[in-house]
Amino acid sequence: MAEELILLDFWPSMFGIRVRIALAEKGLKYEYRDEDLKNKSPLLLQMNPVHKKIPVLIHNGKPICESAIIVEYIDEVWHDKSPLLPSDPYQRSQARFWVDFIDKKLYDTGRRTWTTTGEEQETAMKEFIEILKLLEEQLGDKAFFGGDTLGIVDVSLIGYTCWFYSYETLGNFNIGAECPKIIGWAERCSNNESVSKTLPDSKKVFGFVQELRKKFGLE
Amino acid sequence: MAEELILLDFWPSMFGIRVRIALAEKGLKYEYRDEDLKNKSPLLLQMNPVHKKIPVLIHNGKPICESAIIVEYIDEVWHDKSPLLPSDPYQRSQARFWVDFIDKKLYDTGRRTWTTTGEEQETAMKEFIEILKLLEEQLGDKAFFGGDTLGIVDVSLIGYTCWFYSYETLGNFNIGAECPKIIGWAERCSNNESVSKTLPDSKKVFGFVQELRKKFGLE
Repeated sequence: MAEELILLDFWPSMFGIRVRIALAEKGLKYEYRDEDLKNKSPLLLQMNPVHKKIPVLIHNGKPICESAIIVEYIDEVWHDKSPLLPSDPYQRSQARFWVDFIDKKLYDTGRRTWTTTGEEQETAMKEFIEILKLLEEQLGDKAFFGGDTLGIVDVSLIGYTCWFYSYETLGNFNIGAECPKIIGWAERCSNNESVSKTLPDSKKVFGFVQELRKKFGLE
Repeated sequence: MAEELILLDFWPSMFGIRVRIALAEKGLKYEYRDEDLKNKSPLLLQMNPVHKKIPVLIHNGKPICESAIIVEYIDEVWHDKSPLLPSDPYQRSQARFWVDFIDKKLYDTGRRTWTTTGEEQETAMKEFIEILKLLEEQLGDKAFFGGDTLGIVDVSLIGYTCWFYSYETLGNFNIGAECPKIIGWAERCSNNESVSKTLPDSKKVFGFVQELRKKFGLE
């Protein structure tokens, strides 16, 4: 059966990036459609009427929404190549725990490093580092969260790294000085072609963040 | 291998209830330990150092945290009896989507129906009904979200129903009048022994909510 895959996405989205990397790891071809989030396409509204958010993967006409769920779907359907979840149920539960942790903590805290000022911003930066330190502990001496190869936690976290430059520049803090293991891990990830060809340039993301800050009246 | 299962939980928790029902559906025996959330046990803090929250399932000494992840773990390890997730990857993704939707929307909105007043409370009640209406649409003409038998969405949602009496009494609204299909579904669920023997009495939950309201200075 001919597979038709369409990804509704927005280029700097860390949630979209994880789906793009999962698709690349599986060697899947797909049509990429960058959404204008100020003027969402009728297709996006039709395919994700509940949340109206990217990313949405449309597989043979049927939508899958929410990035962590999309990555699990991709891993289940194309399970022969580059497994992203461990096969052992306990290890799977732990991988899911850390993806959930990233989703519950990192996006909001990262956002607060550049949308707030003063004490609020200080708190956000402190929390951001604490979250990364917990992740460093979890990484331990492994090359990747998935072990010797990329797994779902790596794929879910790596999209944040192209935002680090923006967080650091606008918050005036140094993630690498506090969390060298995360930076080492990100470098190892970027040797993977699926990652390197997917991750947007940090300066381009910074340009986008500056535009947002102007729009929010922060600059 | 002798299985040792310990559940750290708190009796009115809708998150704990879903785990208890999943364990009951699989016919598993476990040691239940009710936590004092004002004075959490050293075991809870050791087993869930990241979130420090119930429920935690400890399986042969190893912890699994976050209720939706625990239910998937239970379903994967004891897969022969009462499957909770569909076997088809697309159907699985849709079941996960609705569990995630419940987790993202229902707890917080439900809580706002009895912790706020005036316009804020009105908004919360309106949103609560909107969420249930979306779920009713999803249920359609099926007996259960899982089809003919309980599935992960049913197990994840049913714990909220023992809180409905509290929401209705304190918000002065009628969930059944607005969402009769959800009430019909809850009645069908309660014919299942795993559900009926697990769900706490609504009046007992109301007593607990009243205690909380006093503590929060709301009564």
